[in-house]
Amino acid sequence: MSPAPSAALKRRHDAVRAACGRAGVDALIVTTRSNIFYLTNFSGSAAIAIVTADRVHFITDFRYVTAVNAMQQSSQPCPDLQLTVVDGAYDSTLTKLLTSIGVSRCGFEAAHITVSRFNWLTATLNQQAAAPQLVPLENVIERLRVRKDEYELSTLRESARLLSQVASGVFGEVQRGRTEREVAQAIDRRLLAAGFERPAFDTIVASGPNAALPHAHPGERKLGENELVVLDFGGVYRAYCSDLTRTVFLGTASDRVREVYSAVLEAHDRAIHTAAPGRSRFDIDAAARDVLTERGLGEAFGHGTGHGLGIDIHEDPKVTRRTGPPAGDLEQDDAVDVGMVFTIEPGAYLPGWGGVRIEDDVLVTEHGVDVLTNVTTDLLEL
Amino acid sequence: MSPAPSAALKRRHDAVRAACGRAGVDALIVTTRSNIFYLTNFSGSAAIAIVTADRVHFITDFRYVTAVNAMQQSSQPCPDLQLTVVDGAYDSTLTKLLTSIGVSRCGFEAAHITVSRFNWLTATLNQQAAAPQLVPLENVIERLRVRKDEYELSTLRESARLLSQVASGVFGEVQRGRTEREVAQAIDRRLLAAGFERPAFDTIVASGPNAALPHAHPGERKLGENELVVLDFGGVYRAYCSDLTRTVFLGTASDRVREVYSAVLEAHDRAIHTAAPGRSRFDIDAAARDVLTERGLGEAFGHGTGHGLGIDIHEDPKVTRRTGPPAGDLEQDDAVDVGMVFTIEPGAYLPGWGGVRIEDDVLVTEHGVDVLTNVTTDLLEL
Repeated sequence: MSPAPSAALKRRHDAVRAACGRAGVDALIVTTRSNIFYLTNFSGSAAIAIVTADRVHFITDFRYVTAVNAMQQSSQPCPDLQLTVVDGAYDSTLTKLLTSIGVSRCGFEAAHITVSRFNWLTATLNQQAAAPQLVPLENVIERLRVRKDEYELSTLRESARLLSQVASGVFGEVQRGRTEREVAQAIDRRLLAAGFERPAFDTIVASGPNAALPHAHPGERKLGENELVVLDFGGVYRAYCSDLTRTVFLGTASDRVREVYSAVLEAHDRAIHTAAPGRSRFDIDAAARDVLTERGLGEAFGHGTGHGLGIDIHEDPKVTRRTGPPAGDLEQDDAVDVGMVFTIEPGAYLPGWGGVRIEDDVLVTEHGVDVLTNVTTDLLEL
Repeated sequence: MSPAPSAALKRRHDAVRAACGRAGVDALIVTTRSNIFYLTNFSGSAAIAIVTADRVHFITDFRYVTAVNAMQQSSQPCPDLQLTVVDGAYDSTLTKLLTSIGVSRCGFEAAHITVSRFNWLTATLNQQAAAPQLVPLENVIERLRVRKDEYELSTLRESARLLSQVASGVFGEVQRGRTEREVAQAIDRRLLAAGFERPAFDTIVASGPNAALPHAHPGERKLGENELVVLDFGGVYRAYCSDLTRTVFLGTASDRVREVYSAVLEAHDRAIHTAAPGRSRFDIDAAARDVLTERGLGEAFGHGTGHGLGIDIHEDPKVTRRTGPPAGDLEQDDAVDVGMVFTIEPGAYLPGWGGVRIEDDVLVTEHGVDVLTNVTTDLLEL
């Protein structure tokens, strides 16, 4: 269970410093939990990191001091980490530290700091002489995280491999008369038994008409004969997420079921074959979407084709139509590249009838993609 | 599994409208997920609600339209809900809607909207004639949520009752030679089997020296003889959280273990007896803290005595020392009141030696508190 090596952390710090240089700031305040983990291996729920030219100042509270000390005495400590224990509150400790370390222009994660918090920090800093100026920055660390390093790739591969093993046992849980909730709980138990730290998100088991809801909550509905069942589940392994969807049929599938299933499967395969270094993430989405549109299912596919995977279950790159949110997105950098990991998960949802989604996790390599998950995509009739 | 009744939702809407009136705005944009759930019963992961004088405008995307329609056709629809499906992105849909419904001063949740997002919304609205002014507000809905209504109390009581049942089975899982992780997974399985939707947070099983880490991650450490084991777990039942900690001993406790345990237990009991309508949350904390200080364990108790429970696992009131964060906290309203639900969870943590924490969930009633969890607080020697 070794964490990211110190050398990898150091490379990440230096990449942040280079980005700070380009943005014209001499430090970056990091408040996003997954970004803090990426830079330090610290997995507690509360901390602030400040990356300066030669230090990673690390603010945490009483509860985590022993954990930080253990981390620093382990074989893979976080390089150049300097601990400051919270005195009073996090943000008053932060403003004091910022003043004492003498930074003049300090970036912060504008997509994470709230308006309340920014107003308080600014007002407090402005009461001091020589207060640093706070500069809103976007996606500094997210832009690094989108290309996984060697340690991350080996962890993500293992996460996807374990999830594929879980999947083979999951099909046997899909039994007539069990409720969606019972099946979802059985899946969660299998995730834990396989060594995952926790499910990566609320497991979806959507049967019959519920299969038309892409994000259905598993409920008290009992699985019945002649129904599609969408199973969407993932696990967190050594802090890295994997994500898989298969859709099965209870009974013998009708022609219409086969037709919808094969359209979604072709969309899935087409997107996977389209993905390669230099291809636009929008084109990968279009590859899936065009298949479904040709089969008259364009309107039935209302979500994006995929999302990045890593420490977060939803990361960049977002494989979507070219109509994403205008802020906080990597619009300016829409080509996928070697080392990116994302899902391919087209679906078709027909209200009242049901739905189909098929999802795998892929890694972009020099020549195309490696599919990290490994589970049959044939329509299973159970 | 019925959701909050329509009449309760309506009362909540009207309370929001009254708060808007006091704040001088004619609408409130609600973006916090748990607040949206509180106002609408909608439990999806993405939506924006705008509470105006006579409507709850509700923005969600394709994925949730079927779920919203089902909710509105159920026996407990959200009153006055008017659905707008996202066209393009959430925030561009929001700015268009805000302009079209003709509000002039519109509050937003400043503690939830990020600097990035606020800058984008303001810039976009300012391109339009007669753009509404955005007014940062704090804790509008959180201040309502702190006093639970009848529906919430019955749900929280049931959540705590189920958790207490789970606890009695949990003690049997604490066995020499099992790893912390194995025990944590067994607890999670018991939570799901008892009918909880999911664990309310990452279950803590901290043994031996790890028991000195208040927020330890369960790891590969095997439980051994003559060790304290802190077990901290909770469940989400019908969207409401419960939270419980017990500390057990493997073997026969030494005098020092008994001494620390009885100090924490006395702190726990004293805090519970202090809690009553009109008592300051700081005084409840002090009641526990003073006991530990008298026993020479003041320095060993580095966190707050408790936190509110509800839709979120950490809510107001925060039962802490009078040194909380200056923003986003209910400093101005520090007395607890009838209908508030919170944890009482003092602890003592001695690095290298271990630690003890004892936690129950309480509801403030007219005469004191009801302890909602019901599990022995005797030191169990297993």
